[in-house]
Amino acid sequence: MAENEDPYASQSSDADIVTEITPKSEDFSRWYIDIVRRAELADYTPVRGCMVIRPYGYALWENSRDRLDARLKATGHQNAYFPMLIPESLLKKEAEHVEGFAPEVAWVTHGGSEPLEERLAIRPTSEAIICSLYSKWVRSWRDLPLLINQWVNIVRWEKVTKFFLRTLEFLWQEGHTVHATQEEAEEETLLILEIYRDFMENDLAIPVITGLKSESEKFAGALRTYTLEAMMGDGRALQAGTSHNLGQNFAKAFNIRFEDQDQQLKYAWTTSWGVTTRLIGALIMAHGDDKGLILPPKVAPYQVVIVPIPGKHFTESVLPAARSLQEMLTAEGFRVHLDAREEYTPGWKYNEWELRGVPLRAEIGPRDVSKGQAVLVRRDNRDKAFVPLDQICGEIAALLDSLQQDMYDRAKQYMADQTRQASDYDAFKEIMSGPRGFIEAGWCGESACENSIQEETRATIRCLPPEREVPEGSCIRCDEPAAHLAVFAKAY
Amino acid sequence: MAENEDPYASQSSDADIVTEITPKSEDFSRWYIDIVRRAELADYTPVRGCMVIRPYGYALWENSRDRLDARLKATGHQNAYFPMLIPESLLKKEAEHVEGFAPEVAWVTHGGSEPLEERLAIRPTSEAIICSLYSKWVRSWRDLPLLINQWVNIVRWEKVTKFFLRTLEFLWQEGHTVHATQEEAEEETLLILEIYRDFMENDLAIPVITGLKSESEKFAGALRTYTLEAMMGDGRALQAGTSHNLGQNFAKAFNIRFEDQDQQLKYAWTTSWGVTTRLIGALIMAHGDDKGLILPPKVAPYQVVIVPIPGKHFTESVLPAARSLQEMLTAEGFRVHLDAREEYTPGWKYNEWELRGVPLRAEIGPRDVSKGQAVLVRRDNRDKAFVPLDQICGEIAALLDSLQQDMYDRAKQYMADQTRQASDYDAFKEIMSGPRGFIEAGWCGESACENSIQEETRATIRCLPPEREVPEGSCIRCDEPAAHLAVFAKAY
Repeated sequence: MAENEDPYASQSSDADIVTEITPKSEDFSRWYIDIVRRAELADYTPVRGCMVIRPYGYALWENSRDRLDARLKATGHQNAYFPMLIPESLLKKEAEHVEGFAPEVAWVTHGGSEPLEERLAIRPTSEAIICSLYSKWVRSWRDLPLLINQWVNIVRWEKVTKFFLRTLEFLWQEGHTVHATQEEAEEETLLILEIYRDFMENDLAIPVITGLKSESEKFAGALRTYTLEAMMGDGRALQAGTSHNLGQNFAKAFNIRFEDQDQQLKYAWTTSWGVTTRLIGALIMAHGDDKGLILPPKVAPYQVVIVPIPGKHFTESVLPAARSLQEMLTAEGFRVHLDAREEYTPGWKYNEWELRGVPLRAEIGPRDVSKGQAVLVRRDNRDKAFVPLDQICGEIAALLDSLQQDMYDRAKQYMADQTRQASDYDAFKEIMSGPRGFIEAGWCGESACENSIQEETRATIRCLPPEREVPEGSCIRCDEPAAHLAVFAKAY
Repeated sequence: MAENEDPYASQSSDADIVTEITPKSEDFSRWYIDIVRRAELADYTPVRGCMVIRPYGYALWENSRDRLDARLKATGHQNAYFPMLIPESLLKKEAEHVEGFAPEVAWVTHGGSEPLEERLAIRPTSEAIICSLYSKWVRSWRDLPLLINQWVNIVRWEKVTKFFLRTLEFLWQEGHTVHATQEEAEEETLLILEIYRDFMENDLAIPVITGLKSESEKFAGALRTYTLEAMMGDGRALQAGTSHNLGQNFAKAFNIRFEDQDQQLKYAWTTSWGVTTRLIGALIMAHGDDKGLILPPKVAPYQVVIVPIPGKHFTESVLPAARSLQEMLTAEGFRVHLDAREEYTPGWKYNEWELRGVPLRAEIGPRDVSKGQAVLVRRDNRDKAFVPLDQICGEIAALLDSLQQDMYDRAKQYMADQTRQASDYDAFKEIMSGPRGFIEAGWCGESACENSIQEETRATIRCLPPEREVPEGSCIRCDEPAAHLAVFAKAY
């Protein structure tokens, strides 16, 4: 599929059912879409630009959500639910904010048969409605910090869409916090950045680089935006999450003030931060291979699929052995699926569950039953092990752990291989025309250079890692001295 | 607040902060709204008819959601996410359905600055969009049953609104299933009814009566609707959930067909069912008293609140003892909050946490520390017990269990007391003008009688319990013989 095609424009016909997936090396974009549909992660709908997240894809999101949610709650954040509809006048209160989002807003103009007096935006993000309530709830320094998050749907009117990566409607969490001082707001922004990094690297097995967005790429209305950038299998970067220090911009626009311990009335400091269902897209593109998905055990809907092998004594002994293995593993807390369908061969099932990315397969046939064992096969490297049933729980736990770690290590090595330095702008252009990936280069800090680089190569500044030393010499684009180390890439 | 007032019309001012709650006996409606706001369950917003669910209210919803979700998953249902926006033409495919919902639909007419070619409904319910996808996914009897649920937001353009009970936007789960036969669809409809009953009675401690809706009260497009009806503290009924057997109405309108085992192409049978955030309103009105909320331990955000008592050795021994009690109880899996704020007295805190309905309070003061004990006080009956710290986990578990059971028993007794028989229509009108509650009476089955009863008394048929014997004699309203036992009430 070409990048500018809209796959959601019409409902697909029966002929459109995917049976085989395109090899990754042949056409990455087609490979991605084939996996999404064939693994039943998502599907087209009759609504332009909107997808349905099917149960297998939604289970991935639920598992991811629960693991991130636990980290947010452990650091004192609470969930809530704010209205989805935002009166236009409220959205307009912060000038930069409305300018950034207005072109993407879906407008509700009628309720039943009545036209509305004021049209309502479907939230493209919720700063406006949330800050209007915070201005009511925050009175005293005792009310701070206020640490609230919500898991909701969002609508942004996009022209070009792609499963998970960019759709008119998507799911996300958005945190919105209020603090007494600038320092505390900055600490919160960085705490969340670290929580996101830990979640992405340790649960999703996706290594990220973190840093600041340039002025032109920061959130509309923010003081500064921190970002997490991941590297996909085709050498393009993906923004995996952002954490914004909003300074006092929203506090002033929405009048969030508090009486401090010194009895002075002061404007508060706010932050906001979010990750979205595009992380499911990142999981696919960071780990998948020609056979299909490879899912990290910590978020995989099924960690183990059991395939009983037909043959002698199938119903009397093999199937019961498979069932008792399923029960034993489920009782140990593993997420297990037994594929006992009789209308498919084992070979068909192996392909099916490899395509759907299940980390471990357990095969059990007549000989295995008599030997009291099962065969375990890893999805990532196809390593095979014959394991006695009385040791299988420990072995599965160990294999899942090492698979999780190996997935991260491979992705980390890949990201390192895909990170290059460019000696001059010709070399920069040469890299961006070919293998792409990240390029680290000096940048003068001027948006003029940033813009010409984007126009000439389609690469953008993904982030400015604050801990990295500024390179000697000039900006990669102009003759001015470098003021930042910038990480460039073509991005999703 | 009068029932026809719209409390969400404008943002409340500072002066509007609730400090005391109105006694329940004095003004039930005012009492309800005071509790919602003072306990910080929800608040008004600048959007007409839309509330914000605050963290304490949302935690109640999350705990309820998780317990119902586990039951649905245990019976083979999977979660997914379908688009919120529904093209008008799709909504119109099932004639009765669109007629029922059109007056309540919010319409999106613009994306960014562009008018849309076809306007989009914000889902008032999702049969139309989901069935359009099921028609694509269902091919063979092997694809059935298809058992999918989603937890999402819904918009219905209501004129009169009230916290949790009726708002323009609310949260719910909606299940949508497809079956090969009429019998299986009916079994599913009843399975869900039983799951809901079990959840409401055992987790929310709210007894319900179940039965069929009359033709005029059933879901727009359904073959039949089953309902669960609860009795609130003011003698009014509340519809707590519904489960619909949709017959083949939607399968025919959306062309959901499958090849059966006999190779014949057949229309499928579908069901849908849902419960909403109005259950939070039911929790308040079924259990609360003049002091505030009383929350069932199974879904309470905090099951135990620990209040350390100031005095001698507060920082050296009382506060550390309170903290170690908190850690011990948390490790045992209880949801615990330690209120260590220094700016409030213990008495103030007792009132606060009674108002917010925490089932158990643990007080710990200097004398308790020296005796190695804590004082446990039940929210519902204020029973007090001095419990040695080394036995406190078991004692708390037992107290929470018995509190949960007692809450259910009390509500069950109350419902029985509020259920009356009417000998004739004069007696019916007399009851409905006074204590209200449920009235069981014979009904001829004609909507003419149902309508006159509603016009004359404001009571509606809440349900027709199928297992109950049809009373001898005539309809409560006309001279025709009774065809059903009907349960009448004024309802939310």
